[in-house]
Amino acid sequence: MQSIKVKSPATLSNLCCGFDILGMALNEPYDIIELIKKEETGIRIQHLDAYNLPLDPQQNIAGVALQAMMTALDYKQGFDLIIEKKIKPGSGIGSSAASAAGIVVAANELLGKPFNKQQLISFAMEGEVLASGSRHADNLAPCIYGGLVLIRDTPTLDIIELKTPPLFITIVHPQIEIKTSYAREILPKEILLKSAVIQWANVAGLVAGFLHADYKLISRSLQDVIVEPVRSKLIPGFNEVKHNCMNAGALGGGISGSGPSLFMLSENESTAILVENEMKAVYDKLGIDYKTYISTVAQHGVEVVI
Amino acid sequence: MQSIKVKSPATLSNLCCGFDILGMALNEPYDIIELIKKEETGIRIQHLDAYNLPLDPQQNIAGVALQAMMTALDYKQGFDLIIEKKIKPGSGIGSSAASAAGIVVAANELLGKPFNKQQLISFAMEGEVLASGSRHADNLAPCIYGGLVLIRDTPTLDIIELKTPPLFITIVHPQIEIKTSYAREILPKEILLKSAVIQWANVAGLVAGFLHADYKLISRSLQDVIVEPVRSKLIPGFNEVKHNCMNAGALGGGISGSGPSLFMLSENESTAILVENEMKAVYDKLGIDYKTYISTVAQHGVEVVI
Repeated sequence: MQSIKVKSPATLSNLCCGFDILGMALNEPYDIIELIKKEETGIRIQHLDAYNLPLDPQQNIAGVALQAMMTALDYKQGFDLIIEKKIKPGSGIGSSAASAAGIVVAANELLGKPFNKQQLISFAMEGEVLASGSRHADNLAPCIYGGLVLIRDTPTLDIIELKTPPLFITIVHPQIEIKTSYAREILPKEILLKSAVIQWANVAGLVAGFLHADYKLISRSLQDVIVEPVRSKLIPGFNEVKHNCMNAGALGGGISGSGPSLFMLSENESTAILVENEMKAVYDKLGIDYKTYISTVAQHGVEVVI
Repeated sequence: MQSIKVKSPATLSNLCCGFDILGMALNEPYDIIELIKKEETGIRIQHLDAYNLPLDPQQNIAGVALQAMMTALDYKQGFDLIIEKKIKPGSGIGSSAASAAGIVVAANELLGKPFNKQQLISFAMEGEVLASGSRHADNLAPCIYGGLVLIRDTPTLDIIELKTPPLFITIVHPQIEIKTSYAREILPKEILLKSAVIQWANVAGLVAGFLHADYKLISRSLQDVIVEPVRSKLIPGFNEVKHNCMNAGALGGGISGSGPSLFMLSENESTAILVENEMKAVYDKLGIDYKTYISTVAQHGVEVVI
């Protein structure tokens, strides 16, 4: 096999109370990444989108992730990368993870699967470090495993796959910029123990809600008393979007990753569409450009196409 | 029906990372509580044990719980209570909860079940307030529901029943005194966000481990980076017990409630016996009196006997 093309999904991370530990793969949107073996050494990158991402492999998220894998393999040849990003960088729905995870899964397939999923995450993490300076796997793990995953322990990559009942995810991406590093800086270093107990009670309820397919419990547990109160101030319209979407029947939701995208979970598609309309109405009124998506949970992560 | 006799189980609360939100009912030990209708008003208490617990109903945990229920019912007659406590008060395995939950379940049965389980917990909570000054349900809820329960929200008593695979619980109760109120006072008011994230990742892992019947995941998740480091200093032999029990094959464990009892979970009975031997060896060496128990999970809470 000389070349391969994969689809790499957007991902939700955090899911309200599950800050830094939960992530979910989405069927929409996704990037398309093509990888072609070449005889000469080195990584050559071509973009089929308008985001002006770096072409220097050492400055490119997919480039550094692929290089980490090539180094581990002591691989001597090179690759051409053709990347079509449909997940806008900085949107908060795992754009950098889709680049990094997509490329390492593609390369692993092309080279006869020398690595397991955990190893692929550790290569892809080099891309996340380049993107945000932190080694986190809450977008990479769902991007590679698919579905909903718990990252119980990041250093050892203890990844637990969790089943969910059918869910419809509505996302709105208001076109404002929030740096992941800034969204992290503004978080408190210390929190009240009593707030932490509320948070982990909701985390436990959310996990049980998913595994019991109990939508009402999912809804009651989708609360974040720690991160959302701080980060939501960075996102115009947050309170109104949340309030109106809940009134429209959403189970709950909040900030996707470190924002600015907001997500809402619904039990059925018709509610997800009502929720989308509420999101649009808020940003139309505010005069802020936006993009919306309605997605189901992607049961598989990065997938080979054709 | 003029009288009823119930068995009210001991309970584990916290289960390491699940501080204040998880509790589990045990088949051993348990209290026996007999309740007899009498024509005259008032509550008359008799104890069949040697703990010298108060006979004044307003100072007695079972008394105040029963009174709360009688007040809600506007019940005009009285009761004789005959209580045989086998769960030593102050042991950290839900002795006060067994008194409070046992009496309200017994009275509810005797009076034709006017109340549901949530309401029974709220009456029994008056007993917990008398015992420790705090309204907590992490022993009461498993005592009344049986099995493993999550208290997602205490004010609204949002109780979630969680299935577990077969488990054997070994408990050692070193005969030292730790006041619940003191064990609560020494906890930090604030904790690091990064420690809280570790804790809620383990809470999520523990819930998933129970619901997936994944013993290895349960074992990896039975960690407490917040409360155990503080409270374990109050319990002589803690580190040695934990270390030796893990070496003997326990899945994990820690402090039961606010101590001084320690618990260890095992996958099978033979391991639970090895664990018990390790516990005995430590306290024999330290010259501290102790009592040990081996129990399975009580699938039912308070039960009517004969």
